[in-house]
Amino acid sequence: MSRERIYLDWNATTPLRPEARAAMALALDAIGNPSSVHEEGRAARSLVEEARATVAKAVGTQTRNVVFTSGGTEANALALAPGLHQHAGAPVKRLIVSAIEHPSVLAGGRFSPGAIAQAPVTQQGVVDLDALQSMLSDDGPALVSVMLANNETGAIQPIADIAALVRSAGGVLHVDAIQALGKIPVDLSALGADCITLAAHKLGGPKGVGALVFTDELQGLNAALRGGGQEQGRRAGTENVAGIAGFGAALKAAMMSMPDDAKRMGLLQRRLEAGLRAGRGVVIFADSVPRLPNTTLVAGPGMKAETAVIAFDLEGVAVSSGSACSSGKVQPSHVLAAMGIPASLAAGALRLSTGWQTSEADIDRTLEAWRKLSGVLGRE
Amino acid sequence: MSRERIYLDWNATTPLRPEARAAMALALDAIGNPSSVHEEGRAARSLVEEARATVAKAVGTQTRNVVFTSGGTEANALALAPGLHQHAGAPVKRLIVSAIEHPSVLAGGRFSPGAIAQAPVTQQGVVDLDALQSMLSDDGPALVSVMLANNETGAIQPIADIAALVRSAGGVLHVDAIQALGKIPVDLSALGADCITLAAHKLGGPKGVGALVFTDELQGLNAALRGGGQEQGRRAGTENVAGIAGFGAALKAAMMSMPDDAKRMGLLQRRLEAGLRAGRGVVIFADSVPRLPNTTLVAGPGMKAETAVIAFDLEGVAVSSGSACSSGKVQPSHVLAAMGIPASLAAGALRLSTGWQTSEADIDRTLEAWRKLSGVLGRE
Repeated sequence: MSRERIYLDWNATTPLRPEARAAMALALDAIGNPSSVHEEGRAARSLVEEARATVAKAVGTQTRNVVFTSGGTEANALALAPGLHQHAGAPVKRLIVSAIEHPSVLAGGRFSPGAIAQAPVTQQGVVDLDALQSMLSDDGPALVSVMLANNETGAIQPIADIAALVRSAGGVLHVDAIQALGKIPVDLSALGADCITLAAHKLGGPKGVGALVFTDELQGLNAALRGGGQEQGRRAGTENVAGIAGFGAALKAAMMSMPDDAKRMGLLQRRLEAGLRAGRGVVIFADSVPRLPNTTLVAGPGMKAETAVIAFDLEGVAVSSGSACSSGKVQPSHVLAAMGIPASLAAGALRLSTGWQTSEADIDRTLEAWRKLSGVLGRE
Repeated sequence: MSRERIYLDWNATTPLRPEARAAMALALDAIGNPSSVHEEGRAARSLVEEARATVAKAVGTQTRNVVFTSGGTEANALALAPGLHQHAGAPVKRLIVSAIEHPSVLAGGRFSPGAIAQAPVTQQGVVDLDALQSMLSDDGPALVSVMLANNETGAIQPIADIAALVRSAGGVLHVDAIQALGKIPVDLSALGADCITLAAHKLGGPKGVGALVFTDELQGLNAALRGGGQEQGRRAGTENVAGIAGFGAALKAAMMSMPDDAKRMGLLQRRLEAGLRAGRGVVIFADSVPRLPNTTLVAGPGMKAETAVIAFDLEGVAVSSGSACSSGKVQPSHVLAAMGIPASLAAGALRLSTGWQTSEADIDRTLEAWRKLSGVLGRE
């Protein structure tokens, strides 16, 4: 008899919440195109608008300031374009991204490569505010893109401080909050952000849906996908009605259970990390800064992450060697490199990320596997 | 007791096929991210790859030549970019689109506005081959984008002839086959196209999924969405696994039933159009060229389409005043304008489009509503 598998890769993608599944089943029965004026079209439209209201409320903005996309990558591509500005500000002409951003942010959207600069981070994986301030003072208003929480280390970035710097330099702030949403509060005005990227599949919604949300102050947002007039002309293409409905339902459920989930995941994180640290030479990254309650990036001495992921998989535990964004590619983490972690240590980094279904028993079995594999895979 | 509603807006979007619903239900249970190497990730990956094989087979290409997108608009945006070329050809620097293309093609993707030209069509809504040939001879290799069947009139374009012209001019041919797929054969080599856009929601799949497919000969395709390495680096972003699985299952079912469906829809079309023509002054557009078996664009004398759509809706019949791509906007059809149809006549154009669930009784009730509304809305 094989034991049940343990899934500790929630930062890659989560199970679908039952609320999302139910909403999607209903939406898949909605025959109409949301752009059609007849009854069937209006029914589909209302599903999209209900989800839009949920998203707007979750992040503290108006429904008119929510653009649904095919996911975080597209939302980032929509946000990262020259010309954005605050109502009374000048259009941005350059982009500053932190060095630990997701590859879809590092790619820089519609900025030319020469107009993109990377802000460094500390050894703890947090944006270096002095360096950012100096870069902001360089020349002309910049769009700054910094994630709220890093997907590999879980390190939470000082967005309010960054917002103050960006504001005083006359810039615009984009925040990729994909990994944070549903785990810690994400509120546009509390963060001081102008626009925020969200994705459904990290909080119990389906894969392939996301949103860009923004403040009333933000101007100059131009569609990246052009054609039909959907999303108030900001994103052409027939809407993924079922996906959007699932996103809304998942987000509503996630907002309800976030306080309890976060508390429980925090306890599991302590249990997990205490167990990991019992091993000799174990390093947990970004461990002296605020982190998401569900994320632990750890390296064991002599462990090779690519081998370890497979060994854990055979033990029935799904973990990751970092982000899952680069299909099949084994490459060193740009996040750990930006933190100045030696490549030899970074090569052993495993990400263990939990979620609302993770139990103490899952953590204990994972630690059991960790101890077993440390002996086999490590060079102790 | 209200009678069941009749849906005659299949060109806007179709009901979900049961096969697609079943495939999506399974895929929504697939917890993993297709980019993850563990068991859960591989299971999600296999769902995507199974759908890819179905799509490749349906259009006669290899699985490596299928890129899944968030729909037709994104697939068109991916295809329409400078730099495409045949293996031995020169990269294209300009774009020629037919004047009756979908707005997402007219937008021209990554070509600058000055590099885009529109090829005219005849009064029957078919691309003017002489004019196209002359435009091709102008200067330098061009990317030509012509749809296989028009979404408003149903007119089938002479793609093989166009391919011959494009080929001899050293150009590249993109074909938007969204409206044709599942109704008439769509085969890359039979059409002579270099790349083809497909979408799921016109053939029984979910909204929000599409694909760009191409030949081995096509080179220079650059990602529009950049970041992760998904889709062999041609389209970044976590895959819409459930949507893709639904697309594959719907397409497989559509391919199986296409011969029967097309025959039945053709009979219904004759029945419908005979009934419509019984009215005085009724015009059916593109009626002397090959059309899709499911599409009838008709204008009644003095009828205003925007009013008529609402009146039909109240009678329980869902029809369209043209394409559903421009949310809520009432604007004259660019397709009919390109065909030289006077604005007064075009303003009365109603699109009646059928599908695999449409019955003779649906057609008869639609004709009943048409006769009733012609008396009320028309100026006979």
